[in-house]
Amino acid sequence: MRDFLPAEKARRERVLAVIRERYRAHGFDEIETPVMEEHGRLHAGMGGDNEKLAYNVLKRGLDADAIRAAADASAALADLGLRYDLTVPLARFYASHRAELPAVFRAIQIAPVWRAERPQKGRYRQFVQCDIDIIGDPSPRAEAELVVATLDTLDALGLEGGTVRVNDRRALEWMLDAFGFAADERPGVLITIDKLDKIGPDGVATELRDRGATPAAIDAFEAFVKRPRPDDGAPFGEGQIRAALPEGAPDELVAHLVGIGAAVAAARPSTGSGAGTGSGTGTGSGAGTGSAIPLAFDPFLVRGMGYYTGTIFELAHPSVDYSLGGGGRYDGMIGRFLGQDVPAVGFSIGFERIVDLVEAGHEGAQRAIVLVHDRDAPVAELVALKAALVRDGARVRVEQRTKNLKALLERAAADGYTEFATVAAGTGADALELKPLS
Amino acid sequence: MRDFLPAEKARRERVLAVIRERYRAHGFDEIETPVMEEHGRLHAGMGGDNEKLAYNVLKRGLDADAIRAAADASAALADLGLRYDLTVPLARFYASHRAELPAVFRAIQIAPVWRAERPQKGRYRQFVQCDIDIIGDPSPRAEAELVVATLDTLDALGLEGGTVRVNDRRALEWMLDAFGFAADERPGVLITIDKLDKIGPDGVATELRDRGATPAAIDAFEAFVKRPRPDDGAPFGEGQIRAALPEGAPDELVAHLVGIGAAVAAARPSTGSGAGTGSGTGTGSGAGTGSAIPLAFDPFLVRGMGYYTGTIFELAHPSVDYSLGGGGRYDGMIGRFLGQDVPAVGFSIGFERIVDLVEAGHEGAQRAIVLVHDRDAPVAELVALKAALVRDGARVRVEQRTKNLKALLERAAADGYTEFATVAAGTGADALELKPLS
Repeated sequence: MRDFLPAEKARRERVLAVIRERYRAHGFDEIETPVMEEHGRLHAGMGGDNEKLAYNVLKRGLDADAIRAAADASAALADLGLRYDLTVPLARFYASHRAELPAVFRAIQIAPVWRAERPQKGRYRQFVQCDIDIIGDPSPRAEAELVVATLDTLDALGLEGGTVRVNDRRALEWMLDAFGFAADERPGVLITIDKLDKIGPDGVATELRDRGATPAAIDAFEAFVKRPRPDDGAPFGEGQIRAALPEGAPDELVAHLVGIGAAVAAARPSTGSGAGTGSGTGTGSGAGTGSAIPLAFDPFLVRGMGYYTGTIFELAHPSVDYSLGGGGRYDGMIGRFLGQDVPAVGFSIGFERIVDLVEAGHEGAQRAIVLVHDRDAPVAELVALKAALVRDGARVRVEQRTKNLKALLERAAADGYTEFATVAAGTGADALELKPLS
Repeated sequence: MRDFLPAEKARRERVLAVIRERYRAHGFDEIETPVMEEHGRLHAGMGGDNEKLAYNVLKRGLDADAIRAAADASAALADLGLRYDLTVPLARFYASHRAELPAVFRAIQIAPVWRAERPQKGRYRQFVQCDIDIIGDPSPRAEAELVVATLDTLDALGLEGGTVRVNDRRALEWMLDAFGFAADERPGVLITIDKLDKIGPDGVATELRDRGATPAAIDAFEAFVKRPRPDDGAPFGEGQIRAALPEGAPDELVAHLVGIGAAVAAARPSTGSGAGTGSGTGTGSGAGTGSAIPLAFDPFLVRGMGYYTGTIFELAHPSVDYSLGGGGRYDGMIGRFLGQDVPAVGFSIGFERIVDLVEAGHEGAQRAIVLVHDRDAPVAELVALKAALVRDGARVRVEQRTKNLKALLERAAADGYTEFATVAAGTGADALELKPLS
């Protein structure tokens, strides 16, 4: 967990304001839920591995007897916990407030989550997630709106060239079945296939053998991954998607993916930069550089969370080799709270990763003035002078002159101030001589 | 703890943006600290009664033996806690980062805090505080800058007419000593005097007698409170402050208060609305309506927190009979972390109280368009149409036509949308007929 000093905090707030504004422009509405949820809800099996990382909040009013009674089940000591993601709280929120929300609800959530990770570079125990979700729309339009809003937001942050890798959990299930993996071995097989980018097809085949997976299925997988791949057809069109999958993929599945691609292509007609990053292992995307659509179909994209039921996404950017975010369909989760399934799909960007990529810059065109005064300058005059400049639209800091005036002015310039003036007794707003801070 | 739906969340973000912008203009810089602090730090006696309301976070990796061993000290089960205010974290932050901060550091903190209050109207377990603090300036300029920034922010929110009640802890101590209360009975006496506004001078005298306080001192208090009061001199000037205190108040104390008043008067020359709210018990303020300065000296203002060492504030507004915020000097607290005393003074506004007073309004001048489409409208065309309008600067929501179109449009208007168009297959951006949402 980190402290944020003024320069970093200002940068974070500036990036958050852009994200919030872009998502709102795309018709999403922001909501907020409490940072704590009921302990049982956080540990209901919907948070995957993150449940183990939850911070639990000690029950209040526990006496010694209650603590002794809880000795074998520390969960009995906690009745609340800090959220580890924004999806479980959103599902609970939607179930509570459905009647007050539009039929298709497009939610923004921009908020911190907490995970008790081991300290390591780039992993924080408190970090901000920026999620957009569309609840109530089963059509590929929902996926397309999420992708377009996300890429537009990246553009607005000066991060043009983002691309989205796309797959579908049902395609994965169908494909593993087609290879001949038995239903009960598929979860383990998926964990191994998720490493394809890192360890390559041979590494995956070796690990599958070590797992004791069905040998004929492993052979089928290897033959498929290593096949010569066609490179034709419209980017992310039906031909291309079918060519990236084993023969005979279900029509409905292909149509949903094609629908996403067509809508994204129509909404972002001239992105130009093309897709294809992140598919370095040659796993069948086919959407190579030069493609005009910022999507790449990757039939071996897995993503960890167990609650995904359909489309899954991962956000890539040419400047980094890690994912900047991701998401997917989780049509079953809201039903856990509501008792009635409602289609839902979300896209989360990792704010901590994005903010590091955005160039530092000072906020707005506002004048920012430092008033440097001597020790004996009258308090009332200084405060009045400052207030007058603020009323005129400036941002104003008052500093007492130090021996090293140069250092003082350099520090102010680093904090975004653009002008300064020295103030002696009797200096009114009219007599002020403002000089630029170089 | 509450969920915030879109309309309320948008209102909150709008108010927060104004507060953040105004405080920044006044030369304050925003920082952020983690929501959790070490358990020991939160329970070091600096949080007053709020320490008892802290949510404590269960230690991770506790086994049954550790829990049994902790049976008589539930604090041993928690190593972290959620902050109950923003002042203790600020003192810890300043002690950690002093070398990286300006000599006089003006901090903004806008963030939630948590207290395990019993549920009651207007009290929340998670609520947002907006604090500004000035660290490193012992002069009355610090108090004046805080007051001017706070009142300017209220003005910017459309809440003109705010006033600040001012007192000084040292004045209270000196006055109780002058009345003849012994040092060891003063803390209890202060708790009773804090009720002066509610129960009046007779009620206070009765309660002091019930407490067994020194009878001669109670008589001196009563005689002083009920004395005929002069109503002359400059508002918040030296004569007025001296007249509001028993005779012989220390010069240094009076000069500090006069310094605050002179600076605020100079910085807000024409507020006009005057002070005097909140002094209904006739406790000696003398700054009646008609005064041009938005300050009222109240020698019986107490404020609960134990860490105050000098000036204390309370923010009043004519539209409500409760305080909208407050603060004061706490010159001793940073020394607890740093091992060296540093002067500090802060002013906190209660965001939850402010936000209820600000008039609802829709954000900005942005065009906001609802596209209403039939069930069979092509997904790609709709998404492209939406993206084109967003590129042109609009905020756009897509809605499927329902039987009750009127209800759909009314709901969109309530959500801040201003125009709508119906979309059929083949409607391009050029052919769109936008109509105003009444």
